[in-house]
Parts: sequence; structure tokens; C-alpha cells
Amino acid sequence: MTAATRRAALVEALVAEGLEGLFVTTLVNVRYLTGFTGSNGALVVPVEGDPVFLTDGRYRDQAAAELPDVDHLIGRDLIGTAATRMTSGAWGLETHTLSVDGYDQLADKVGDVDLMGTDRLVERLREVKDADEIDALTRACDISTRALEQLLEGPLVGRTERDVARDLENRMFALGAEAIAFETILATGDHTAVPHHHPTDRVLATGDLLKIDFGARVDGYHADCTRTVVLGRADDWQREVHAAVRASQAAGLDLLRDGVDVSASDAAARASLEASGWLDAFTTGLGHGVGLEIHEDPFIASSHAGKLSSRTVLTMEPGIYVPGRGGVRIEDTVLVTAGAPEVLTTMTKDLLEIG
Amino acid sequence: MTAATRRAALVEALVAEGLEGLFVTTLVNVRYLTGFTGSNGALVVPVEGDPVFLTDGRYRDQAAAELPDVDHLIGRDLIGTAATRMTSGAWGLETHTLSVDGYDQLADKVGDVDLMGTDRLVERLREVKDADEIDALTRACDISTRALEQLLEGPLVGRTERDVARDLENRMFALGAEAIAFETILATGDHTAVPHHHPTDRVLATGDLLKIDFGARVDGYHADCTRTVVLGRADDWQREVHAAVRASQAAGLDLLRDGVDVSASDAAARASLEASGWLDAFTTGLGHGVGLEIHEDPFIASSHAGKLSSRTVLTMEPGIYVPGRGGVRIEDTVLVTAGAPEVLTTMTKDLLEIG
Repeated sequence: MTAATRRAALVEALVAEGLEGLFVTTLVNVRYLTGFTGSNGALVVPVEGDPVFLTDGRYRDQAAAELPDVDHLIGRDLIGTAATRMTSGAWGLETHTLSVDGYDQLADKVGDVDLMGTDRLVERLREVKDADEIDALTRACDISTRALEQLLEGPLVGRTERDVARDLENRMFALGAEAIAFETILATGDHTAVPHHHPTDRVLATGDLLKIDFGARVDGYHADCTRTVVLGRADDWQREVHAAVRASQAAGLDLLRDGVDVSASDAAARASLEASGWLDAFTTGLGHGVGLEIHEDPFIASSHAGKLSSRTVLTMEPGIYVPGRGGVRIEDTVLVTAGAPEVLTTMTKDLLEIG
Repeated sequence: MTAATRRAALVEALVAEGLEGLFVTTLVNVRYLTGFTGSNGALVVPVEGDPVFLTDGRYRDQAAAELPDVDHLIGRDLIGTAATRMTSGAWGLETHTLSVDGYDQLADKVGDVDLMGTDRLVERLREVKDADEIDALTRACDISTRALEQLLEGPLVGRTERDVARDLENRMFALGAEAIAFETILATGDHTAVPHHHPTDRVLATGDLLKIDFGARVDGYHADCTRTVVLGRADDWQREVHAAVRASQAAGLDLLRDGVDVSASDAAARASLEASGWLDAFTTGLGHGVGLEIHEDPFIASSHAGKLSSRTVLTMEPGIYVPGRGGVRIEDTVLVTAGAPEVLTTMTKDLLEIG
């Protein structure tokens, strides 16, 4: 039912573009439009008539179960099969992901058809979440928050980064995650200065920062959350950096609102870091859409124009990274509304001093 | 050093193709040729002169650490930067993965250059593993084997599929895996009839089959192993099916030899299943190369021609799947030699009766 609604929205977009249909080859877009969770599939969506789903024999039963309302064609040659359904007029292709070889194979097989590039049509629909998606994202974020709260009850000092990361992941599974959203980033001491540090056998020690970037996946939807805490008592530098990141995040979050340009949030978060003197130590992107992919449209950056819409879900993740010394990042997954965004990762952002 | 050797082999292949160089855009191929483990990078490999590695600012320090011997260019526009290094003649592109949009951007920016499709040049080099790769694969397989041996010491009956899968994964981490190679497939009862079942809350019960397809990842290299056991005493049907799969695997393995066509192994494994009367119940592929990717060239199939070479690493995974009743799969990761292949996943293939 939901997938049919999404396909109807796509057909509207195709009509606006003057296309006869879209050949959907990006797997995550196929999932969005059908519910199919396998690893090989494509979808032909004509403006007139019924869509056709294409997959190989491994997924015959799964396709029947997951797509009861969409016709299937089973075979090895998805592109050749698709070509038989694209018979005339201008057809859109997902040229941002379709390979050159895939395009050439298709062009050889279609007859009197104009193959046209399209600009992330399905990705743009995916930016605004429907109720089922918001529900899955909320559950993924709840599991993430509860797992981190449990973990921080400790003990932590004396254990390795790797062990603590694994512990957090196990708690997410125990709370109902179907998978982790991405490989957990867990860093202590000067490792916190590396934005995307892989956990090592470094032992957590009193006085160190501990930065954890992690999330649960539920029904295909990803949570993304970062908190940075201190093991023991925070020193002045740790407090200063944490406060600067928190202020930057608050400034950026406040502008993630329906109708506001995404670049405004970027400007506000950066202005806050500039005012506190830390802008040069912020070396990553500020945030990104999150949903069926851990990183998806829209991306928050000064160069990205485009007004936000309610029901878009994004992260906001400013950070300060001082090589050789340490770093702090605070990240939430939030839901855009007409007012202040709803924070789905509800773990406190106070600077916690642990055990 | 190793990466330089691999680049030299690529240059030989490029010379043979009459190309001035290759623009490597497939991330796993970039890793193979440089050692870079980040999530965004590309490599320009000219036949004459030095290669140039391209990445964005997030990976400045990581690139310096991982690629001390290769020049870097840091920037957001990898394709535009690459174009400045492709100045004349015929340049190869990885058209099996390069997107149509990426190709168009490049074509707009290069001057008097012929852009040519290539046929998986780096993937073909990757089929034959060097000593470092065989070492990493061996360690990944050892960890996998030891983890499964520990797990099967039990207890298992009364626990859920999900819990037991997680237990196995934790054992791999404890034994030194950097990650799991793929989401563990663990199925019991009639779930074993589904080739790629996701673990559920089904409780393991005495008398049931238990099928586990899993592996560890070490230094980027993947192990892939499946065993099917019985919880309690095996019945006649379980013994029959297990014996048929085991015989099929032995027949297929015996022909994974240097100089033998990959289709010969496929034919032998299928002939064995035909003789035992179970061929119709074998619905998946027979095996695949494994290395930096969990599924890579060469793939074992009747339609794939091509002689195997020593130091190729593949899986061999026949199975029997009877919907509503159950299934058995036995899979090993093996190293091709001049004689019988060396099995890297050394866990016993006897039908184990557990607990």
C-alpha cells in the first residue's frame, strides 16, 4: 500500500519531466518503491500501465512474498528483460548510478526509445519520509539511545575500545536492532581527534575523552548518533571544546525547519564555531539525510541550496578535532517540522563524567 | 611494496591493451592498488610516469599514512582533477562500475583523449592472490573455524537463531576479526530451506537441522564458510541430504585446479547431485571468488569459461533446499593449487550431532 503510494508520487514526477517511465536500477530505490529487500532487482515504472519488477531466480519466493501487488519477471538478464518493456518515447534512467556498460547494453536492446538521464528523482522523493519510515527511524533511534545509556552505566575504564564498541552493538541487538547501522566509531584519548576512527586495543583510561558514533538499523532504516563523554572528571579544555560543539549544534539545529534553506543551518553552525574560535578544527561535513541509507539526500553544506521540508530526517554533527590532543563530536538524528526539529536520538547532550 | 607490484602488473596489462593509462574509480580496486581503506578515492595509473591518488579533505592524514609512496591530490572534484592528468591518447575507464553521469563529466573535461571501456582489468589481477592476501585470507578462515568449533560446544537448544548468530559473531571478534564478513545466515528447522535466511527469534529445537553461513574479515579479506549440523540425533532424511551435498562438494572441489576450466567444477558438482537425485533442489550458484570482496571474480558456473590459476581463492557451496522441510549447505573457502585445493576453512565436514 505504502509502496504503491510512493510509485504514484514517482509517476507524477515522471509526467512532469515528460517521460514515458523510469527504469529504476538503484537497489535502495527499488526497495523504497516495492519493499524488496534482496540484493539484485530492478523496476520498470511506466507512466501508463503497471510496473514490472525484475530479479533473478534466487529471489523468486522472496519477491512473491514481499511484492504481492507487483508483477515479476524472473531471469538473469535484467537489462534485456527491461528493454522489452520500454517500447517507445522518452524513458528515464538513473544515470547517477547506472554503469556505462549497463547503459550500452540497454541502448543496444531498446528499439525506438530515447534514453534520458534523470536527476535523482527517487532520491528526492525519499527525502520526505512517510509515517512508516518515521516510525522505523524513531524505533532505531530509541534503541540506539537506550543502548548507549546502558553502556555508560559502566564500568568502562580498563576495557579496550574494541570491547566497548562490541558491547554497545550487542546491547542494540538485544534491544531489537536487526543490524548495526554502520561500523561503530569508538575512540578514546587522542584517537578522538580522528573523525572516523576504527576501534583498537587501546585501553580506556581515567581523564580521557570517549567519543562514540553509532546507530541501530530497524526495518532497513538507520539511526546515527554521536556523544562524547569524559572518563572521570573533565578538565577545562574538555569542557571548553564540548561547550563549543554543543553551541554549534544548537545553532545549526535551530535552522533545520520547514521552508528554510539547508545552507542556512550550515552557516549558523559554522558561525557559532567561528565565534568560539574553533572553526578551523571542524574538518568534516555538518550533516546528511538518513533513512534507507546511512548517508542520503539532503546533505548539509554551504554549497547545497534547497529548502527543507517537514518530515525530512537529517543528522547534525559538528565537531572539533585537534590532532594529537583530542576531539569532540555531538550528533543527532532529527525530524524536520515547521518549528524546532524533533530530536529522535534523545540521549542527553550534557557533558557526562563517567565512573 | 606489494601495492607497487600490483600497479606494475596493471601497467603491463594496460600496455597490452594499447592504453595510455587507467582511471581507477572502483573503490575496492583503488584499495588493492594502493592500500587506501577510506570510503572515497580514485587512482590515475599512467603507463608512463607515476600514479596519482585522488581523495577529499577528510582523508588527507589517512592517505598520507596509508600511501606514503604515491602522490596525492586532495579535492572535492575527483573527476575534474583526474581529467587534468589524462592529457592525450587512449585512456581506459572502469565502465562496469563508472556511472553514466561520471563518464559524461569526465568526457566534458578531458581534451584530446579517447575514453575507452575496459573489461575488469583490475578484477582479473585480483583473482590471483599474492602472499599477503593469502595470509590474510588464511587468518580470516582460521578465526572463522575456531569460532564455529567453540560455538558448537553448546549449549544451543533453547536459544534463538538471532542469539546464536550473535554469539558466533562475538567469538570471531574475540579471536581477532576486524569485522564480520557479511550478515550471518543462521537457520534452523524449515528455515534451512531458505538459502539466505535472516536469523529470527525461532528457538533451536532437538531434531532440527542448523545451517550456519558466516565468516570473519581480517585486513579487508573475507572468509566464507557454511556448515549444517543436526541438533540431537540425525534422522535418515537428514543423513541422506547431508551426504549428497558433501559428495557434490567433494566432486566440485576436486576440479578446482590450476589449468582446469571453472565450468568443469560446476559440471562435476551438478553431476554428483544428479546422480543422487537432488539436482532440482540445488537453486543457487556453486561458488565464487573471495578476497577484498565477499563475492568477486571468478564465479563458478556452467556458463563461465576460463581456466583457474594457482593462488586463486574461491568458495564451493552446493546445497539442497526443500521448501517447507529443510536444507543443507556445505561451503569452504579454498586455495587453488596444481593439485587438490587447500581448504582454508578446516572445520570438519562430518555430519555433527550436537548436544
